Amino acid sequence: MEGASPLHAETSSAEYARLAPRLCAMIEAWMREGEQPDAPVMPHATERAYREHVRLALPDDGVSDDALLAVMRELLENSVNPWTDRFLAKLYSAPTVASMCGDMLLSAMNASVHVFSASPALTLVEEECVRALCALYGFGAHADGITMPGGAASNTLAVQTALCCAFGGAYRRGGIFALLRTLTEQYGRVGSGARPALLTSADSHFSIDRAALASGLGMDAVVHIESDEHGRMRVDALERTLAEMCGDPAHPRGMPFFVNATSGTTVLGAFDPLPAIAALCEKYHCWLHVDASWGGAAVFSPTLRDTLLRGVERAQSLTVNPHKLLNVTHQCSFLLVQEAHVLSEHAIHAGYLFHDGQGAGQGPVADHAMKTLGCGRRGEALKLYLTWRQVGTRALGAHLDAGVRVANAVLAAIRANDALEVGPLAAPLFLQICFRPRCMPGGVTGSDATRALEARLQEARQYAVDFAPTRRGDYVRLVVHPRVPAAHYFALLDHVTALTRE
Amino acid sequence: MEGASPLHAETSSAEYARLAPRLCAMIEAWMREGEQPDAPVMPHATERAYREHVRLALPDDGVSDDALLAVMRELLENSVNPWTDRFLAKLYSAPTVASMCGDMLLSAMNASVHVFSASPALTLVEEECVRALCALYGFGAHADGITMPGGAASNTLAVQTALCCAFGGAYRRGGIFALLRTLTEQYGRVGSGARPALLTSADSHFSIDRAALASGLGMDAVVHIESDEHGRMRVDALERTLAEMCGDPAHPRGMPFFVNATSGTTVLGAFDPLPAIAALCEKYHCWLHVDASWGGAAVFSPTLRDTLLRGVERAQSLTVNPHKLLNVTHQCSFLLVQEAHVLSEHAIHAGYLFHDGQGAGQGPVADHAMKTLGCGRRGEALKLYLTWRQVGTRALGAHLDAGVRVANAVLAAIRANDALEVGPLAAPLFLQICFRPRCMPGGVTGSDATRALEARLQEARQYAVDFAPTRRGDYVRLVVHPRVPAAHYFALLDHVTALTRE
Repeated sequence: MEGASPLHAETSSAEYARLAPRLCAMIEAWMREGEQPDAPVMPHATERAYREHVRLALPDDGVSDDALLAVMRELLENSVNPWTDRFLAKLYSAPTVASMCGDMLLSAMNASVHVFSASPALTLVEEECVRALCALYGFGAHADGITMPGGAASNTLAVQTALCCAFGGAYRRGGIFALLRTLTEQYGRVGSGARPALLTSADSHFSIDRAALASGLGMDAVVHIESDEHGRMRVDALERTLAEMCGDPAHPRGMPFFVNATSGTTVLGAFDPLPAIAALCEKYHCWLHVDASWGGAAVFSPTLRDTLLRGVERAQSLTVNPHKLLNVTHQCSFLLVQEAHVLSEHAIHAGYLFHDGQGAGQGPVADHAMKTLGCGRRGEALKLYLTWRQVGTRALGAHLDAGVRVANAVLAAIRANDALEVGPLAAPLFLQICFRPRCMPGGVTGSDATRALEARLQEARQYAVDFAPTRRGDYVRLVVHPRVPAAHYFALLDHVTALTRE
Repeated sequence: MEGASPLHAETSSAEYARLAPRLCAMIEAWMREGEQPDAPVMPHATERAYREHVRLALPDDGVSDDALLAVMRELLENSVNPWTDRFLAKLYSAPTVASMCGDMLLSAMNASVHVFSASPALTLVEEECVRALCALYGFGAHADGITMPGGAASNTLAVQTALCCAFGGAYRRGGIFALLRTLTEQYGRVGSGARPALLTSADSHFSIDRAALASGLGMDAVVHIESDEHGRMRVDALERTLAEMCGDPAHPRGMPFFVNATSGTTVLGAFDPLPAIAALCEKYHCWLHVDASWGGAAVFSPTLRDTLLRGVERAQSLTVNPHKLLNVTHQCSFLLVQEAHVLSEHAIHAGYLFHDGQGAGQGPVADHAMKTLGCGRRGEALKLYLTWRQVGTRALGAHLDAGVRVANAVLAAIRANDALEVGPLAAPLFLQICFRPRCMPGGVTGSDATRALEARLQEARQYAVDFAPTRRGDYVRLVVHPRVPAAHYFALLDHVTALTRE
């Protein structure tokens, strides 16, 4: 039955049958183009070129199928092609086909995962992924979690959840205003010393700072703890800071309530030492959050879990982004918590949405919007679910192990190459390698050599890599994606070596 | 070239070529099933039944294509089928095929819209949608905007952005703590009177309360202004509250800085009177945010824009969700702002991500993550873009007009039906109709009749409708989706009438 609306002028299945197979074929062709050895990673080298090539104007009147498909083709042709496997600039790479299937299903179901009645199967899928992830991290019987639209969103919800639970729970109704009163009246804190503070390493992701901004703490409430030369939080510095801040009721940086430990930092891929940090959090009554957005997938490998993630089971909350190392399509992030009840601090009464008294927080919460500070959500867990079902737990572990093996081989090749110098590295190595040319043509060295190399790579468009500031200057930050064949990395090193000699 | 990882055991294009067409056919078949006249809207009537029917366990080892496709089929079979056009319980309905195509493209590109270099075409698409939307709302030459993962996220970012701009801008670094000082020292406010407060109507969405929680204001910082019998904020009550709160330095509810006006409330579909509210915001120096998550799409219809959205051009910020009335797949929400610079309050220095000094806020911001409090984002604007390009601006307006015509016809039919009574309604009517049976079998009346009817509909599974509390008790809240053929609504009324007589 068709509707009166011009958006429903024919049955949708007929329209889908006409358009979707043609788009499938177009996407497959674009993937194949990317898989060719010399395909450029990106179609243009400058922002201006993109602005010249993409015709964008939105029309007053509609267009034909052919014209619409031409628009889609133009957008693909003006996009970075991840199927080259040579986009090595960010902490994600090409996705699994299973997760692409997940997106197709999510579109077709078009359900919001806010209440069970609207999205029963997707709600159950989310629960199962949360259950299985919590089990891998060694979280206890009361653990729970939720998907969020990205690692920053998960980290921010962790800070807000911790604030709701801290100092007697006044944040929810009274905000920071009430917490300041509580800290003054019940904890004897004075002036700026009554301000809740958040501790994180100097190498942690900026989303922790943004979470402080977002939650009303302000960015000044974030105390950055020194890291060591391998990018790990220094436990001695953390301990000293906690002792000082907790011991001085008028400490100008405030009163610690939250420590963020990073498992897999953005630049080096460093893992903060969780057992020692967890012990300090217990001693100083701080919430331990682990930002494992990048490195959390290591939990699938028994070897990596035991070395890199030891102690993670002591965290109160954890962020992991399957859209990074598990190659699930964007976005797919989980916030896991040790105690389910902390998420029901976000429950709210809304009679038009939540029925049967679930707003009051009794019983298991099947309406997952009760657990967030948002409302409607896309069922992003499905994409992890299908990937996981397709390949199984063991293969996800082998995937991570393969990546770390390649990273070590690439590092050995860089060390053996006289034209290149290695920058700061994580210890043990994870999946990032900082390096730069010793010298670029014209005698350019140091951070300038990094910039010069990056500019040449950008022009050539065969590899996308990013650079990053470190304590020893700017370096290329090469990301070793487990999915990417090792040969690409060795070819990149040859390419870079050639550029240094031109 | 294949990788060492088991997630890349063959070329992805080959895997896609094998799986995607089969999934396309499966989805098309499921859509066709839904389009059959008697197809149930939902496969089961109870949560328990879903839990019994969906086999979820994640395996240690992988499965075949056939087994994976069987998992997908099982999930579809256990989901609400929106293609029935009889899921009328929420503020969204079945999506446009163009937006489903958008999701397929987003999967294939798998780019995060955080920096231009990673997602050039998607960044430009977002800019164009923002430009075109701002033009429709009559926003000025300095307007800007961003997509967010839902209306609650957009509303929350609006509150956080307004806080960053309020009272001299101390929120960003110093949080609520610094704002309290500023309000005391520079505005002469005292005690609780120094607390920033947020005003919104009693009929507004709970995401405004959650935004206050999320941003550190606390839910007590929200002052709910009385609404009239048609669900509109009472301007006299707003004026009285603003005068009282601003006039009393020690007012226990704090100091107003933000007024949320709703364009299209959740239950009644009411539009707050924007010109009068805007005038009060100017007088009392408050940020005017318009939560047009639901009703904002009315801007596409010149008639509806002039009646329902008059004055919207005076807002500082506005939320609109194309995933609601424009039938774009979940999620697709925009936060638009009158002055682009307010979003750069969120810019942050992160040398590993933002290059070329964009963190400092000079020049146009092409790295859109600078405008949010998050980082990575899915390029959701593409789904609106393709829908808009496919049908054009005029058809989107005609779509809205068609919906309002059907709503009026359905209301007339309810009024003419002796078995039904009409509940509170918006004036003028938008797209929601509250009604209930005068009497259900067994002499059940009032709110109990609403619950009894809803239970019977749930059992029959031919229509999904929700109920909502109103000032006059619980009513069925019937949502008239422009996409849904009018005949479905009349058939629903016949079905309901029959149920009252059983």
